[in-house]
Amino acid sequence: MTVLVFLDPKFPEGRLADAAVPQLMAADLGATRGDGVFESMLAIDGVPRKMDAHLDRMASSALALDLVFPARESWERAVSTALSKLLVQAGSGQAGSGEAVVKLLLTRGVEGTDSPSAWVAASPVPAAVRERSAQGLDVLLLDRGYDSTVADRAPWLLLGAKTLSYAVNMAALRYAKAQGADDVIFTSSDGKVLEGPTSSVILAVEEDGVKTLLTPELESGILPGTTQRALFDAAEAAGWARGYGPLEPAHLMEADAVWLVSSIRLLAPVTSIDGTPIPSSPALTEELTALLRGAL
Amino acid sequence: MTVLVFLDPKFPEGRLADAAVPQLMAADLGATRGDGVFESMLAIDGVPRKMDAHLDRMASSALALDLVFPARESWERAVSTALSKLLVQAGSGQAGSGEAVVKLLLTRGVEGTDSPSAWVAASPVPAAVRERSAQGLDVLLLDRGYDSTVADRAPWLLLGAKTLSYAVNMAALRYAKAQGADDVIFTSSDGKVLEGPTSSVILAVEEDGVKTLLTPELESGILPGTTQRALFDAAEAAGWARGYGPLEPAHLMEADAVWLVSSIRLLAPVTSIDGTPIPSSPALTEELTALLRGAL
Repeated sequence: MTVLVFLDPKFPEGRLADAAVPQLMAADLGATRGDGVFESMLAIDGVPRKMDAHLDRMASSALALDLVFPARESWERAVSTALSKLLVQAGSGQAGSGEAVVKLLLTRGVEGTDSPSAWVAASPVPAAVRERSAQGLDVLLLDRGYDSTVADRAPWLLLGAKTLSYAVNMAALRYAKAQGADDVIFTSSDGKVLEGPTSSVILAVEEDGVKTLLTPELESGILPGTTQRALFDAAEAAGWARGYGPLEPAHLMEADAVWLVSSIRLLAPVTSIDGTPIPSSPALTEELTALLRGAL
Repeated sequence: MTVLVFLDPKFPEGRLADAAVPQLMAADLGATRGDGVFESMLAIDGVPRKMDAHLDRMASSALALDLVFPARESWERAVSTALSKLLVQAGSGQAGSGEAVVKLLLTRGVEGTDSPSAWVAASPVPAAVRERSAQGLDVLLLDRGYDSTVADRAPWLLLGAKTLSYAVNMAALRYAKAQGADDVIFTSSDGKVLEGPTSSVILAVEEDGVKTLLTPELESGILPGTTQRALFDAAEAAGWARGYGPLEPAHLMEADAVWLVSSIRLLAPVTSIDGTPIPSSPALTEELTALLRGAL
């Protein structure tokens, strides 16, 4: 069950559309060139979480692609319309965990029309998403091909923008699964840890009684993780220190625990890297998940 | 005017669809993840050109993405249906140059359905496409971020596959235009000449009476150019020698002429690189265009 709401100036609350029939033009540049940006946001009990962070990042992605970003209020209203409709469709008490994934999409629209397409798609979070992650992930390190300094000097590579051009991310995940793994951590051509195809990488290290969360530095061309940031803020308030890369694979192997974090899956513990088991900590996963959920 | 024909087992000749109304599902992975492949093919007087080469490359791109490629016959019939309809719509004698651009698209389809979307879109070649190119292109060299040896060891980067994830290609063209240039030649992080965002790069060099066409080597991760190959075959039959990279920017500056070649635009002469004028040769452009057209 998916609820679809298009941003449309003629419909201030968003235009509800039937997700069971075609709604996109075949010549939409989102479909023909991956030319657009998106976000995947969690909603709990009908309330979107970290919406400001998602809209901030999406506006920044749109800027990188020279796309006009619709007013935040239009997005907020469309999301609200979608979540209300989803609650009605699910029926009270039948919404399972009460959690929904809300996708926000913006494309350049049909070639030559200068009229972007913008829509929201809301659906229940599939149970399988969290079940597999909870068991721990076998992860492959895969070369992303870029060095960790290229983002700044080559803005046309759109590093740090969450674009619809995700074919490489999807191919990396398929490659990992074909090798019997569950997920991927990309590395730069100069050997730095970057991010997952759909997640941020976080490490926990305890030294001399100081508990620290670490993540790669943004300058390496990774996406700014909305969940990573929410977790870091919550953890700092709870007494954790925080740090930013550069990180190398050895840091992953030597950490007390490593997670892939993202808006829908939250914290997914990594249990092996390239076939080598690494330490994990159910207690830390529980502690940090509670901190994160408290901050959402 | 665009004619749209979907590949559909229930319609052996292809299913004609109205291009003026939505035909794609909002959850099609082509639109939400740039997860698919495409080709742009020229048709002259209702006859598609280099169709075998385009279908070969598209099948190879699909394989890289682990997409099942529909039977060639299905594509051929859909293309034929689209071009017939386009001729009728244009009315005899009104089709301008009689040239059409035929786009072939294949996406992974709606998430979770395991049912790819495949369609053909045919429309007249816009006159502007060739007019601007004929005047000569001011080109920027832009770093593609990858080194020229990564393609082979990192198949998940999908180098050499023509995917729908073209956001970087589009961003590079926008970047060039914002700088007052017309087009782009990508270079590798190790300084090799690669390709344009929507074209192959070809150089002509005459030495000791031997006329040679040069292009970067496929191993550098570029797309195999269907027009480049047709031109090389035709030129060889006419007495030209041919050669393959590695090429560096200095080779571009020192060549007798440089072109960006592609299926719709054919040979577009490059007249400057990063603001520095380079030699061009209307006579060679004319000679090679005639050879290419004879081979289409």
